[in-house]
Amino acid sequence: MRILFLGDIVGRPGRKAVQDKLPGLRDRWRLDAVVINGENSAGGFGITEAICDELIEAGADAVTLGNHSWDQREALVFIARQPRLIRPCNYPAGTPGRGANLIDLRDGRRLLVVNAMGRLFMDALDDPFAAVDRELALCPMGQVADAILVDIHAEATSEKQALAYHVDGRVSVAVGTHTHVPTADHRILPRGTAYLSDAGMCGDYESILGLQREEPIRRFIEKIPGSRAEVALGEGTLCGLAVETDDATGLAKQVAAVRIGPVLAESRPEFWD
Amino acid sequence: MRILFLGDIVGRPGRKAVQDKLPGLRDRWRLDAVVINGENSAGGFGITEAICDELIEAGADAVTLGNHSWDQREALVFIARQPRLIRPCNYPAGTPGRGANLIDLRDGRRLLVVNAMGRLFMDALDDPFAAVDRELALCPMGQVADAILVDIHAEATSEKQALAYHVDGRVSVAVGTHTHVPTADHRILPRGTAYLSDAGMCGDYESILGLQREEPIRRFIEKIPGSRAEVALGEGTLCGLAVETDDATGLAKQVAAVRIGPVLAESRPEFWD
Amino acid sequence: MRILFLGDIVGRPGRKAVQDKLPGLRDRWRLDAVVINGENSAGGFGITEAICDELIEAGADAVTLGNHSWDQREALVFIARQPRLIRPCNYPAGTPGRGANLIDLRDGRRLLVVNAMGRLFMDALDDPFAAVDRELALCPMGQVADAILVDIHAEATSEKQALAYHVDGRVSVAVGTHTHVPTADHRILPRGTAYLSDAGMCGDYESILGLQREEPIRRFIEKIPGSRAEVALGEGTLCGLAVETDDATGLAKQVAAVRIGPVLAESRPEFWD
Amino acid sequence: MRILFLGDIVGRPGRKAVQDKLPGLRDRWRLDAVVINGENSAGGFGITEAICDELIEAGADAVTLGNHSWDQREALVFIARQPRLIRPCNYPAGTPGRGANLIDLRDGRRLLVVNAMGRLFMDALDDPFAAVDRELALCPMGQVADAILVDIHAEATSEKQALAYHVDGRVSVAVGTHTHVPTADHRILPRGTAYLSDAGMCGDYESILGLQREEPIRRFIEKIPGSRAEVALGEGTLCGLAVETDDATGLAKQVAAVRIGPVLAESRPEFWD
Ligand SMILES: [Fe+2]
Ligand SMILES: [Fe+2]
Ligand SMILES: [Fe+2]
Ligand SMILES: [Fe+2]
Ligand SMILES: [Fe+2]
Ligand SMILES: [Fe+2]
Ligand SMILES: [Fe+2]
Ligand SMILES: [Fe+2]
Repeated sequence: MRILFLGDIVGRPGRKAVQDKLPGLRDRWRLDAVVINGENSAGGFGITEAICDELIEAGADAVTLGNHSWDQREALVFIARQPRLIRPCNYPAGTPGRGANLIDLRDGRRLLVVNAMGRLFMDALDDPFAAVDRELALCPMGQVADAILVDIHAEATSEKQALAYHVDGRVSVAVGTHTHVPTADHRILPRGTAYLSDAGMCGDYESILGLQREEPIRRFIEKIPGSRAEVALGEGTLCGLAVETDDATGLAKQVAAVRIGPVLAESRPEFWD
Repeated sequence: MRILFLGDIVGRPGRKAVQDKLPGLRDRWRLDAVVINGENSAGGFGITEAICDELIEAGADAVTLGNHSWDQREALVFIARQPRLIRPCNYPAGTPGRGANLIDLRDGRRLLVVNAMGRLFMDALDDPFAAVDRELALCPMGQVADAILVDIHAEATSEKQALAYHVDGRVSVAVGTHTHVPTADHRILPRGTAYLSDAGMCGDYESILGLQREEPIRRFIEKIPGSRAEVALGEGTLCGLAVETDDATGLAKQVAAVRIGPVLAESRPEFWD
Repeated sequence: MRILFLGDIVGRPGRKAVQDKLPGLRDRWRLDAVVINGENSAGGFGITEAICDELIEAGADAVTLGNHSWDQREALVFIARQPRLIRPCNYPAGTPGRGANLIDLRDGRRLLVVNAMGRLFMDALDDPFAAVDRELALCPMGQVADAILVDIHAEATSEKQALAYHVDGRVSVAVGTHTHVPTADHRILPRGTAYLSDAGMCGDYESILGLQREEPIRRFIEKIPGSRAEVALGEGTLCGLAVETDDATGLAKQVAAVRIGPVLAESRPEFWD
Repeated sequence: MRILFLGDIVGRPGRKAVQDKLPGLRDRWRLDAVVINGENSAGGFGITEAICDELIEAGADAVTLGNHSWDQREALVFIARQPRLIRPCNYPAGTPGRGANLIDLRDGRRLLVVNAMGRLFMDALDDPFAAVDRELALCPMGQVADAILVDIHAEATSEKQALAYHVDGRVSVAVGTHTHVPTADHRILPRGTAYLSDAGMCGDYESILGLQREEPIRRFIEKIPGSRAEVALGEGTLCGLAVETDDATGLAKQVAAVRIGPVLAESRPEFWD
């Protein structure tokens, strides 16, 4: 199975990069599954139903979230009717939406998409290790799911690595999000799970996390709260991870970083491109 | 000027990678300056005088530190007699050692090396923006210093990016350390400073931050403190940043990620290699 | 029922204050139940079996813990055979010991003792609100338990107040620990639960949290790690909360702060003393 | 000198308690100086010029601030023309207003008021120990200032105690604010400084930090951001510290907790009342 994951879409430049490039990539790379983190897709803060539909329309099979899940409060409502939108599985019991879902792909195969949030330097949710274990026990790879992707939305590299090694061999892809900077450590872990500490964002990289630079810099220096930072509007770059899994096992056979657009060094999966 | 920066050396595998590879790279790439972050070089925690000498012997012109600066308490003493060892410049007044130093290179040119520590999700030191500004005011690029490198030892990508854009055009290289994972966002900022959010570590990448995996994973799951994690002893990978500066301005002309060793995708500066 | 709760015992001065004063108070105030937080009783860090026995011998019916539960690793073992030692109920599943226990008092009545740990500015455990709800559902007040005491071991006053109002009317006493400073907000909440944000410690108050002052002050100023702080050895003060409950409902009828010893203004329950 | 300090005024109930009670207390206790923390006086968030004037009108000689200093952005402007409004002295250089000021009292004596913010579990400002030392060096007690009060706005009891012992003997009063819960550890430190870890708030105590209970409790449980919490509107309680200093030395002779109003156990300075 050919899986493309794209990191946090930040505002209009991120959405535009997806709309402009994803349909072509889906064809060119003959992608079976596309998962996109959409937690910053609405002006940098949260996601709306219209934008979620737009991402699915552009080729996303599933959309994951993170600490900005509910910045647009309509997400608390429409997530109930949008099974392709997945929020962290370690939110408290009773949280709207689901933390994992088995997605029917176009060719009939099924991808389990799990979203989990780290706790180090972040809000204290339920234990992501236990929460992911529960989701995987409900739907083990190779039985109902042909492949499994876990989006680890976390700040600390230690927690991302720990959770990834913890699920190594049980999922196809464990990919981090949240820092908005792509890491260069894509690889296949010892038991067969493709890993990348952070997918990076899809947005304007001449920025602070996809936001215009002046306000965040000013706040670090002056320590005076100000207006909400605005999305940086330069051309967006797509960032993410390309993984080819073995149909027999669901484990990863190939992995490559994806970076397409200005500012960053380009990277494409040579095994597909 | 040809500058190579290497990220946090983690224990023996990191030191061995430096000793085995750096002398050859120094020749092959005709390096003018090598700076290495050594905060984890002694068993993962701090640095000893013998190890600092060893890194300099292997080709480092300067060694920087971070939140683990004083884990080996002898560093508080020998830093006074080792001008090539630089600790964060935003430690309190009265801290042993220096936060920046003008290093005489082999050909007589001079590189100002500055080390600063972030505060987001880290201990509260003095303001790194103001501290770096002070160091740069004392020794502006193009006057006394032929080039300037700032090691931004920080957790949060927002703070690293903010500090880098803040010094853009005033330093040759702004490179992050501390997360032990190399990022893939190496580039030249709009005003000419080479940037990478994190250089990654030099150590065994089949690990949690260069440490053996079992203990950190257990702690995340069980929340019971245990014994100090041990350095992972698999073959180390060199990670860092290669920058070529313009002799007239000190600003960056070329930048490339460096990753040499097992586990990670290799990267070398094509413009030198 | 007459309940006395004593806050974190810090080292020898805290233990001595308990041994010297508790037997007399138990008689004088005709106490039915005594609960003591023992997380710092062993040299300021954790608890040993001998010390736990000593506290029970001195008059404790139950001993609670907190973030220092396992500083003495033997606690991981002996807690299994000591039903009067209660660790936070929101530790991960599989943690040794229990997070709540129904304690048989001397007169045959039963007190449910629950220990929960906050998460704001502390380590990320499971949700204490849900964990306490589970314990209370298993053993509601007035059915099996004649009274219920919850030790909320937390840093932030907001979280302590929130959890206390959340259990108001369902428990007899909700008392905070961990800051080592007694608060002056003892009162009965609207639905009948006795509350105090923090019981304070039992130890030498001419100190930093019960530890000798020099080392903690030095660390705040110098930001250089040092040796483990030693327990301050001046005479200890007993600090805690006195609550008289209504036998029919288990709810609080009277509440008073207890502070007996040097340094602090003395406070005793006038309704008993 | 007779000094009254009142903790964080939270919204209308806090302001009303001040206006109703302070003028009478000023007379009855023959107060020489009144200092009030006003960081939450405007609807729980920040301070306006009108409210600052109102507090001064009601009897405050100086008003201190904290992490909410700038929630009402007009404070950044009017603080320049209001010398009685003091913001934390360890904000970055260039911050509007002043971090300490020598206040002329009605009888001609002068009180130096210093405001400092802690960094543990709070935003990373400059070092409060060094900042307070600088202010005290500029205006030592007994020379220009007849007495000195330091408002330590901090979360952690360890940092408050450390800073208080650090200035012990150099100031008349070191009083904590920010947790909105009064502590019961008022005392005179070994070298003569009156101390209280937290003055508590002036506001409605049947609340979470002075705010209506439902929203904060819901957030702790549901982890879904919601609307801004509203001030709790029940009758406010005055909370603070009463200190009598020695005119010869400026050091404290008497200290008492002040708690006047519903919900909490009342406390008044017997030596004045
Ligand atoms: Fe994001
Ligand atoms: Fe995020
Ligand atoms: Fe490091
Ligand atoms: Fe570090
Ligand atoms: Fe404690
Ligand atoms: Fe504690
Ligand atoms: Fe406040
Ligand atoms: Fe505050």
